[in-house]
Amino acid sequence: VRSGDAAALAKLIDPLHAADVADILEQIDPSTRRDFVQLWGGGIDGDILSELDEGLREEVIDALAPDELADAVRDLESDDVVDLLEDLEKPQQDAILDALDDSDRVAAERALSYPEESAGRLMQREVVMGPEHWNVGQAIDFLRNSKELPEQFYHMILVDPRMRPVGYVTLGKLLSAPRKTPLVDLIEESFRTFPATAPEEDVAYAFNQYHLISAPVTDEDDRLVGVITIDDAMNVLDEEHEEDILRLAGVGEESLSDRIWETAKSRAPWLTVNLGTAILASAVIAQFEDAIAQIVALAVLMPIIASMGGNAGTQSLTVAVRALATKDLTSRNSWRILRREALAGLINGLLFAFLMGLVGYFWYGSGALGMVLAAAMVINLVVAGIVGVGVPVVLDKIGIDPALASGTFVTTVTDVAGFLAFLGLASAFLL
Amino acid sequence: VRSGDAAALAKLIDPLHAADVADILEQIDPSTRRDFVQLWGGGIDGDILSELDEGLREEVIDALAPDELADAVRDLESDDVVDLLEDLEKPQQDAILDALDDSDRVAAERALSYPEESAGRLMQREVVMGPEHWNVGQAIDFLRNSKELPEQFYHMILVDPRMRPVGYVTLGKLLSAPRKTPLVDLIEESFRTFPATAPEEDVAYAFNQYHLISAPVTDEDDRLVGVITIDDAMNVLDEEHEEDILRLAGVGEESLSDRIWETAKSRAPWLTVNLGTAILASAVIAQFEDAIAQIVALAVLMPIIASMGGNAGTQSLTVAVRALATKDLTSRNSWRILRREALAGLINGLLFAFLMGLVGYFWYGSGALGMVLAAAMVINLVVAGIVGVGVPVVLDKIGIDPALASGTFVTTVTDVAGFLAFLGLASAFLL
Repeated sequence: VRSGDAAALAKLIDPLHAADVADILEQIDPSTRRDFVQLWGGGIDGDILSELDEGLREEVIDALAPDELADAVRDLESDDVVDLLEDLEKPQQDAILDALDDSDRVAAERALSYPEESAGRLMQREVVMGPEHWNVGQAIDFLRNSKELPEQFYHMILVDPRMRPVGYVTLGKLLSAPRKTPLVDLIEESFRTFPATAPEEDVAYAFNQYHLISAPVTDEDDRLVGVITIDDAMNVLDEEHEEDILRLAGVGEESLSDRIWETAKSRAPWLTVNLGTAILASAVIAQFEDAIAQIVALAVLMPIIASMGGNAGTQSLTVAVRALATKDLTSRNSWRILRREALAGLINGLLFAFLMGLVGYFWYGSGALGMVLAAAMVINLVVAGIVGVGVPVVLDKIGIDPALASGTFVTTVTDVAGFLAFLGLASAFLL
Repeated sequence: VRSGDAAALAKLIDPLHAADVADILEQIDPSTRRDFVQLWGGGIDGDILSELDEGLREEVIDALAPDELADAVRDLESDDVVDLLEDLEKPQQDAILDALDDSDRVAAERALSYPEESAGRLMQREVVMGPEHWNVGQAIDFLRNSKELPEQFYHMILVDPRMRPVGYVTLGKLLSAPRKTPLVDLIEESFRTFPATAPEEDVAYAFNQYHLISAPVTDEDDRLVGVITIDDAMNVLDEEHEEDILRLAGVGEESLSDRIWETAKSRAPWLTVNLGTAILASAVIAQFEDAIAQIVALAVLMPIIASMGGNAGTQSLTVAVRALATKDLTSRNSWRILRREALAGLINGLLFAFLMGLVGYFWYGSGALGMVLAAAMVINLVVAGIVGVGVPVVLDKIGIDPALASGTFVTTVTDVAGFLAFLGLASAFLL
């Protein structure tokens, strides 16, 4: 297809949804992408730019002619423009801002003045609102006479004379109620507003928890400045999940379209931390070189204890990180959960201690070695349960994202505890 | 509060959102919970039951009197009833079905006949629709005269005479267009239908990808049978993420309100698998007992190589699993991604090989040991990159959830490869 035939390409691409076009751009390799953009640059509109991965977006924007770019962004809703702007370098930002109408530019600059990842960045400025004293008929007439309504809207927001939102009415209620009904009688119970500075994470949580569809955003004087819709909240939720899952594995922000060099760079920091902690664990082993020299079986068996502890710790950790993210794990129940994980560790510790004891006995024919293995297993699985919950809870309390740093801590502790317990007990009882 | 004062409790709880009440029930301990339900059973409505964790739901339903239960479920929308029913044991299911009106009961039984986790289970039966030949005025009059409209709806679905959906019109358009406009002129481009048997995972993906708000569900004859709204899709997305993140850590379905015993049980299977693979890795070490007996430093250093490989593998794996879930990693680009991960592994392998070489040299004063460490590090990080992407891609291709089984495979391979490379090279060059 990419044999240079622009017409054939356009025919294939035109019927696709912007999100699918963006996916195609992400999946093809960089040189094909350049050709693609050159052949079909005019077709790349703001919607496609919005759907692209951040890294790629800059690349594609650079490849577009200035007038193509201006055409592309002009029709976007204000929240999408902001989303596009915030990740770009300064010169690219200015290029896009210049392409906008005066009022849109001021609005975009205003939105960019809110903190990153806040409700103010997420909201769209286009709001459908009416005074609180209107009735259904007045609202419908207003909507019918409005020239520019947002693409999608689900509520009419009611404001008091000082522009403070007091409630909203679903369009369904507007359509089904008699014309004379006062709007205030139709207000939804679910109504909730967010300050423009609220973290987008909290907004997404509230949308999910309370099944919101849209919610007004207010400035520091409680005046209505915009509205957040559920599709934006869903997007944030998706990104937060992605961040959590990647951070748990020690991967920074990255995407499949990154180059090899960028990929290596994004992985290296956590591997460096891991190298440090692994050396620490090795230093523990080094304390027992004499014991290992006398009983080589210790070297063979010790990774089993460490590995079991690491896995049990990761299990507890993942459950705890998820529960913190969904606010199911709070200071109110953290002691109870800690106790539960420690006891669950004890139960599994006893189970696997029995199995390990058998392995030690039958593999090396030594009952004493089996006992030491079993005892070390119990100790390490209990430790794993405790640090698996304790570390993320403590990190969360001191304001560090538990998904980010917990993994290293937990596996370091279980490695050290495992080697220490196993080799220490072995030195005491087997030599 | 739980000193038996029902009135005081009601006063505290009544203003809360159902989701928050459910969270409270989940966080208090089991005996307090029983007292709570007894004191405040009448207040537990269907919304609260819907919000509860599955495990707790059964407990609470058991604690409710039959008439309280009947009251609770009667006002729910059909999709929430189904959601409640599908996780219950047969006798509890029957108790709830009996409490429903005849028509609701038939509908619920119908929905339960669709496969688990399908669009048919997710949809609500309450649909707002009209014939395709209507104009805006007819639609508004119809809505105004309808007695029972769903709580929330965002579109009017247009159907042909055989009840097949042909498009939908947003309520915003209905409200803002002149009464004479034919509805077909207002149809949204985003319109998409789902067969009732479609997996809910695919539905959620499409909602997120195409920014859908609601979508009609059709039966095998393409007739309209229900509608899925974005809040349900958001919920599925959330559950899918939760499942992925827990499965990656080898944790089964579990919740914070599980008892100690259940927690231990849910963790044990994967720990058992891990025990098996750890023994396998140990068996590799056992082949080199002679080498270790001669150079104890090998036992001290070998966990570093294994740990670095395990971590690098987990990084690649997590990125690959996420990319598979978001359909960014396809058969079209899997070779390219595999090559990228292998090369990124090589780059980081060389970096950490250099560092490890220094560690070996300065710790044990042996240049040869440093070289062996360095070589083993490069080998293991390249292996980690390849299996980290290769294993989930292959599992996905043969129809196994890559999040579920990949972790074990990948760390087993990196452990074995790490021990084999390091101890093998050491035996060859250091003895």
